Amino acid sequence: MIVIGELINTSRKSIREAVDKKDVAYIQKVVKDQEEAGASYIDVNCGTLIELEIPTMEWLVELVEEVTKLPLCIDSPDPAALEAGLAKSKNPGPMINSTNGETVRYNAVLPLIKKYNAKVIALSVDDEGLPKTNEDRIRISSTIITNLTKDGVPVENIFIDPIIKPISAGEKHGLEIMEAVRKIMGDFPGVHMTCGLSNVSYSLPARRTLNKTFMIQLAANGMDSFILDPTNRDMRASLIASAALLGQDKYCRKFINGFRQGLFE
Amino acid sequence: MIVIGELINTSRKSIREAVDKKDVAYIQKVVKDQEEAGASYIDVNCGTLIELEIPTMEWLVELVEEVTKLPLCIDSPDPAALEAGLAKSKNPGPMINSTNGETVRYNAVLPLIKKYNAKVIALSVDDEGLPKTNEDRIRISSTIITNLTKDGVPVENIFIDPIIKPISAGEKHGLEIMEAVRKIMGDFPGVHMTCGLSNVSYSLPARRTLNKTFMIQLAANGMDSFILDPTNRDMRASLIASAALLGQDKYCRKFINGFRQGLFE
Repeated sequence: MIVIGELINTSRKSIREAVDKKDVAYIQKVVKDQEEAGASYIDVNCGTLIELEIPTMEWLVELVEEVTKLPLCIDSPDPAALEAGLAKSKNPGPMINSTNGETVRYNAVLPLIKKYNAKVIALSVDDEGLPKTNEDRIRISSTIITNLTKDGVPVENIFIDPIIKPISAGEKHGLEIMEAVRKIMGDFPGVHMTCGLSNVSYSLPARRTLNKTFMIQLAANGMDSFILDPTNRDMRASLIASAALLGQDKYCRKFINGFRQGLFE
Repeated sequence: MIVIGELINTSRKSIREAVDKKDVAYIQKVVKDQEEAGASYIDVNCGTLIELEIPTMEWLVELVEEVTKLPLCIDSPDPAALEAGLAKSKNPGPMINSTNGETVRYNAVLPLIKKYNAKVIALSVDDEGLPKTNEDRIRISSTIITNLTKDGVPVENIFIDPIIKPISAGEKHGLEIMEAVRKIMGDFPGVHMTCGLSNVSYSLPARRTLNKTFMIQLAANGMDSFILDPTNRDMRASLIASAALLGQDKYCRKFINGFRQGLFE
């Protein structure tokens, strides 16, 4: 399972405060905590800072890479901030978060993907907006994959985010994503799929239970990456148990190790 | 989700003692607890009593049906005990646990299925024994379904149990069941699939976590029935969260109700 650690994000109050105070030690601790908890990538997002985004991105990339060899996931709505982060990043195998099927966005991000030989998260959105139906979602995703590979991006470098909608707004929204994952990953062998989980439970109670259960369901349908807080013990326990049951944990070693660490009740 | 409540089984110490002491009140309380916790069927098994099995089965069926209108799942290795239980049962829509693809067993149970118009759990086993590979499992299950329907049993009355093997004995054993569920339910629309969950975690620690995670994974692949303890709060919470995310809980009513009952953290 490819875990993209989501914590270094200035939309989170503690990170915003640490950035404002230049509290390098705190930020670096959060990076190391995510790595120790099993993150494969460290997402870096300071999009909330707007005018200060570019210098902050450069500053963050540098201090994050002081404490980890993990690849970064450079995350911004602004292609200039993506470029600033990618240019500064020295750790091999960076990821871009994100492109999508909108013409302007696609064309702005493509040169960065190629210049930095980056992996890329691609949201299932196009010039018509968010997918209205699951057929839309599958069609938009397929078009993006087809275009990216035609434009020279290896399919293995593409991480499709199918856009999760709340089940509170439509009871089939969760099931549709499971179907889309099977269809897209079946049609494009080698492609990855990823998502953030929390939208699915929007406006419902017990969101952690729903988010965690949804992660297990998506992984059981083939989704192989998640954007999440790897230090959340409950989510981490579910990831490890899932992997053991999906045949991704030889001799259940990681599971047994997690048990010894007291991860499971 | 079709939940077959497994608690009325003399292999469980508390039930064995209650049967020995003729403690009707205790047994009836366990029945009602399972019904309140959402059971769809009440399994009744007194196979450990051997010579006393038939009179005990008759006694149990009668006292269980005094407190529930749920259909019973009459569970025995002995066709004579199955018949005794079915003959005694008055609640509509009984289930037989179980037939399989062994010639002798199949021929002994078929007349009971037909006479009582019963639903039936069919284990993926034949005269060659347990399935050695997943292809075996799918082939044996398909043959049983084909034979039962040819013999006049509606496909909707068949519950295939694919035989769960421990992941400790083979790391792909969990994944294979997910694949088998998709294949069998895809090939035979209308057929149900069920299983007990605990074999998957045999010889591993934190078995409750594994069993619960496996249930979520199987349901996310289409399995629509489980033989379990519905009064296990953790399992019940996972069933309810699963159903909400699978589009089986209109307006998430059962989920929200579960939350109000304190089922989720």
